[in-house]
Amino acid sequence: MFNLRWADEGGFPASDRGAAYGDGLFETIRMHGDRGVLLSRHLDRMVRDAGRLDIPVSLTKLREACTAAASRYSGSFMNSEMDCGWVLKLILTRGEGGRGYRPGLGGRPTLMVSAGHLPEMPLSTGVAVDFSRVPLMVNPLLVGIKSLNRLEQVLAAREIQGSLYEVIMSDSAANLVEGTRTNLLLKVPGGWVTPPVKSLAVAGVLRQWLLERLRARGELVDERAMGIGDVLGGHCQGLYLLNSVIGVVPVRSLAGQDLPVDGGLATIFNPLELLE
Amino acid sequence: MFNLRWADEGGFPASDRGAAYGDGLFETIRMHGDRGVLLSRHLDRMVRDAGRLDIPVSLTKLREACTAAASRYSGSFMNSEMDCGWVLKLILTRGEGGRGYRPGLGGRPTLMVSAGHLPEMPLSTGVAVDFSRVPLMVNPLLVGIKSLNRLEQVLAAREIQGSLYEVIMSDSAANLVEGTRTNLLLKVPGGWVTPPVKSLAVAGVLRQWLLERLRARGELVDERAMGIGDVLGGHCQGLYLLNSVIGVVPVRSLAGQDLPVDGGLATIFNPLELLE
Repeated sequence: MFNLRWADEGGFPASDRGAAYGDGLFETIRMHGDRGVLLSRHLDRMVRDAGRLDIPVSLTKLREACTAAASRYSGSFMNSEMDCGWVLKLILTRGEGGRGYRPGLGGRPTLMVSAGHLPEMPLSTGVAVDFSRVPLMVNPLLVGIKSLNRLEQVLAAREIQGSLYEVIMSDSAANLVEGTRTNLLLKVPGGWVTPPVKSLAVAGVLRQWLLERLRARGELVDERAMGIGDVLGGHCQGLYLLNSVIGVVPVRSLAGQDLPVDGGLATIFNPLELLE
Repeated sequence: MFNLRWADEGGFPASDRGAAYGDGLFETIRMHGDRGVLLSRHLDRMVRDAGRLDIPVSLTKLREACTAAASRYSGSFMNSEMDCGWVLKLILTRGEGGRGYRPGLGGRPTLMVSAGHLPEMPLSTGVAVDFSRVPLMVNPLLVGIKSLNRLEQVLAAREIQGSLYEVIMSDSAANLVEGTRTNLLLKVPGGWVTPPVKSLAVAGVLRQWLLERLRARGELVDERAMGIGDVLGGHCQGLYLLNSVIGVVPVRSLAGQDLPVDGGLATIFNPLELLE
């Protein structure tokens, strides 16, 4: 089991392995009142990825913590935001102990819980994005894990200036992989393209939900490496950024080049229909 | 300037970017009483690498913090350790603020200062090491920076079991790069080989000091990619692990294969002669 901590009551000791080495992971969950959007998928991902890092955590206890968090925080956001919306943030670390990088045996993880305001939502007419100059390097053992090692994303996010909404990071083979806080989905004739999970720094819950939804409607989704030519060539029928708190965001221009915008996909994801 | 925090008085708020994203860096400095081994090199590295991350920090203020730390903590380690030895740990983070990954403008960094015991020192007759199964992937923008993103090293350190002292991590081209907490130096006929800085996750201060020292003695040091064949082939005259707190550690066996051990190099580094 973990030590449950409320961010408003105190922080991490300097010796917590999360603070010392980024030895942990996190989730940010869009809440409306006391319910969360795609909540089960967020918690399932945290349990699965904690298992990959060998940080023991129980799904049941995690759910209980979310229930307690909703009862503790949701009142603060009543009437203050669209549909009583807020963001629940869970940081799960390996806790204290060990010798240097080497974790101790039987250490007790820390679950740090905090609440924040919803971010400003982008216009449905689409956003401007650019290519990042920060290369994305994903260790095969850490693929998809929303870990606390996010320095690459921090460096890339510093490039988001002026009217830019996001920058897209590429791997060493110049494939477009993901934004700093968003996964990518491309509309092409006959279906959709999205970079495969094995290439992703963060395997987003909205991405997975949307892929299942599209396939359930009989649409073809190709999970494959995505080059610049796929997006800026003539076959692109729309590029979308996916983030479970923000939603599905159409891209209207990439590196100054206009892209076709079709709002259809954005309407598939209605957070209020996905509350749990 | 930074906010100076003492670890014994409190920790990081959950919203500190160091705890949230590993957005910061650290140093561990071997102290004897109120003086530190290679102290200037540690502080110079922190200032230089903070600059690369655009975290503002002044060398003068960092020095003042170390002086205050020595006066605060050194008494606790009098008579309790070899030569009043202890370890000073500095964690410098970007502090709070910003929107998600994107740092805020004009944020104030946090310097968290703590003290700990010296680690157990290895036998001078040499240690047993093995190859790590965790690949090392170093982003070109983060080369050499002792950042708080250390999950790869944590995963690799979990392989250090039983009589093993360290594991050696390789890059995607199967070059041996470094241990979880040590740099590598290989003795070959006519000189020395060590992996180049551009390949390193952490560019150690002892490594740099030792290279300068060897070159000053007229010895040849080749900074180049180092393959398994270089170490397990017939030319290896000794493999050494370098860590500024632990010192120069000869390797007596690698993956079960005996290596030649010559204690000569270990005697070059006498921490008590390098106190500042």
